[in-house]
Amino acid sequence: MHQDSSVAFADRLTQVAAAVEDALAGFLAPAAREGEIARPERLMAAMRHAVLGGGKRLRPFLVIETARLLGRDTGDVMQAACAVEMLHCYSLVHDDLPAMDDDDLRRGQPTVHIAFDEATAILAGDALLTLAFELAAGPAEPDDCGVHLDLVRGLARAAGLGGMVGGQVLDLAAEGRYGDAPPGEAGIETLQAMKTGALLAFSVEAGAILGRATVDQRRALVAYGQAIGAAFQIADDVLDREADAAAMGKRTAKDADKGKGTLVDILGLPAARARRDAIAATAIAALSCFGPEADILRDAARFTVERRV
Amino acid sequence: MHQDSSVAFADRLTQVAAAVEDALAGFLAPAAREGEIARPERLMAAMRHAVLGGGKRLRPFLVIETARLLGRDTGDVMQAACAVEMLHCYSLVHDDLPAMDDDDLRRGQPTVHIAFDEATAILAGDALLTLAFELAAGPAEPDDCGVHLDLVRGLARAAGLGGMVGGQVLDLAAEGRYGDAPPGEAGIETLQAMKTGALLAFSVEAGAILGRATVDQRRALVAYGQAIGAAFQIADDVLDREADAAAMGKRTAKDADKGKGTLVDILGLPAARARRDAIAATAIAALSCFGPEADILRDAARFTVERRV
Repeated sequence: MHQDSSVAFADRLTQVAAAVEDALAGFLAPAAREGEIARPERLMAAMRHAVLGGGKRLRPFLVIETARLLGRDTGDVMQAACAVEMLHCYSLVHDDLPAMDDDDLRRGQPTVHIAFDEATAILAGDALLTLAFELAAGPAEPDDCGVHLDLVRGLARAAGLGGMVGGQVLDLAAEGRYGDAPPGEAGIETLQAMKTGALLAFSVEAGAILGRATVDQRRALVAYGQAIGAAFQIADDVLDREADAAAMGKRTAKDADKGKGTLVDILGLPAARARRDAIAATAIAALSCFGPEADILRDAARFTVERRV
Repeated sequence: MHQDSSVAFADRLTQVAAAVEDALAGFLAPAAREGEIARPERLMAAMRHAVLGGGKRLRPFLVIETARLLGRDTGDVMQAACAVEMLHCYSLVHDDLPAMDDDDLRRGQPTVHIAFDEATAILAGDALLTLAFELAAGPAEPDDCGVHLDLVRGLARAAGLGGMVGGQVLDLAAEGRYGDAPPGEAGIETLQAMKTGALLAFSVEAGAILGRATVDQRRALVAYGQAIGAAFQIADDVLDREADAAAMGKRTAKDADKGKGTLVDILGLPAARARRDAIAATAIAALSCFGPEADILRDAARFTVERRV
């Protein structure tokens, strides 16, 4: 990334993250909306703990910037962007549970089942998953209900058996807890495409849906999103290997402790970095049908591989 | 219920349950559909364990019979009926978890976390919740997308903070684990309206949505559904008190062990039975705008209070 575009991109990412944070806080406000059944406050607090106060908000950024490329205002797509982020946060809460990855810390903060309790963490995740679908369904009188049904269906596919839930099952199996052999390169790629890639790819697709993309535009954007998803996970594994636990705010040696392989283990660091950069280049190439108005998405591809946190 | 209508109703309930079982089995078939990413088989087996092979299928029955009252064929609404049942089954899987109600048996069978493991049970529940929304969103090219968005929104409300998740939070709090005082009569009614009543009421409403009910018809059916939901839970508590553990296939003295109050504890058995019957009468009265074509729903109200299992 050039210095100037890098700075402009970082500014835009920060600006969008702040707007997303405000919107998320609104959807998770402690006060019940008028006429609404009282919300269980302990659960709402756990949901806010899971969602607010951090993160790059890369997924909502991809929703918003893809829709903006196609002429949609940020405000018009913010609810869908928040749906995607809530789905992401639900998966973190459940993945961190003792029966799953058993993580005590995330971004340097206690995970939900540590800060609250296990039952509350399970239910907060369930509530965030449910709220994600409610938000994706849009307002009570949407101007285009086909768009919102597309969003609901896409969110369900990204979340379900062929997406995040399926990927987490493969991830647990990769530890050997069900007697499976460790996955090879193809197995790891499938696992990561499901667990992490599916929602990143859908974030871009959601922007395409909201922006009423043409068939060709949508195909190009989906290819971009899938590449972003793949590059992101390799970049994450490279970062994990490079960074120390303190800088990351989570226990990084943990996957290796559990015997989970990553592409870095199989390919080695230099080859993994090369793979990551090649996939990012594929993402950028997929945008060739767009002009400079898509530069922010091109920068997002570069950011995905160059980020240090 | 008269002897004849009781037999006819029981036959119809059995017949619908068989059709629902077939449809559920189809949605949870082990073989991947063509072109689909391979489904994690262990997870699918856990989902089938959670969903198939039992139950009265009262919720899908209410969807189907309400829609049929309004002229819709069973086949046209089966997918939505299965969505409601999957949402119900997800909630049972998560409620049974060790961190929640810690139940080993359900309908005389090991619960999912016993038959499989805790991580698989959490993920099977997540997958069923997600699949419920995917099914509610309908086919890829629905003939009326407003209907399906209404279903998604209604399902999300029944599942979320003001519904099942919220009700489970109140239920856990009622045990005193978060330092709350035991709920009184009004607190128990709220808890039960959320935890059990919301989805039963939505089952009827889903049938009304699918049947393109008029505003007046929908209002009447929602009132009926809410009464069915309230009567069902009191009937369940009365049954729990009357039945022994062996006949029910679950540990019935458990709620009392945990100090959870029910309306039976507060009102006593005779008054609880009277309350239950009065609410069932309210359900039947709500259907006064319909003729004999609604007799099957009237029978369902009677069945709700007279059932012995």
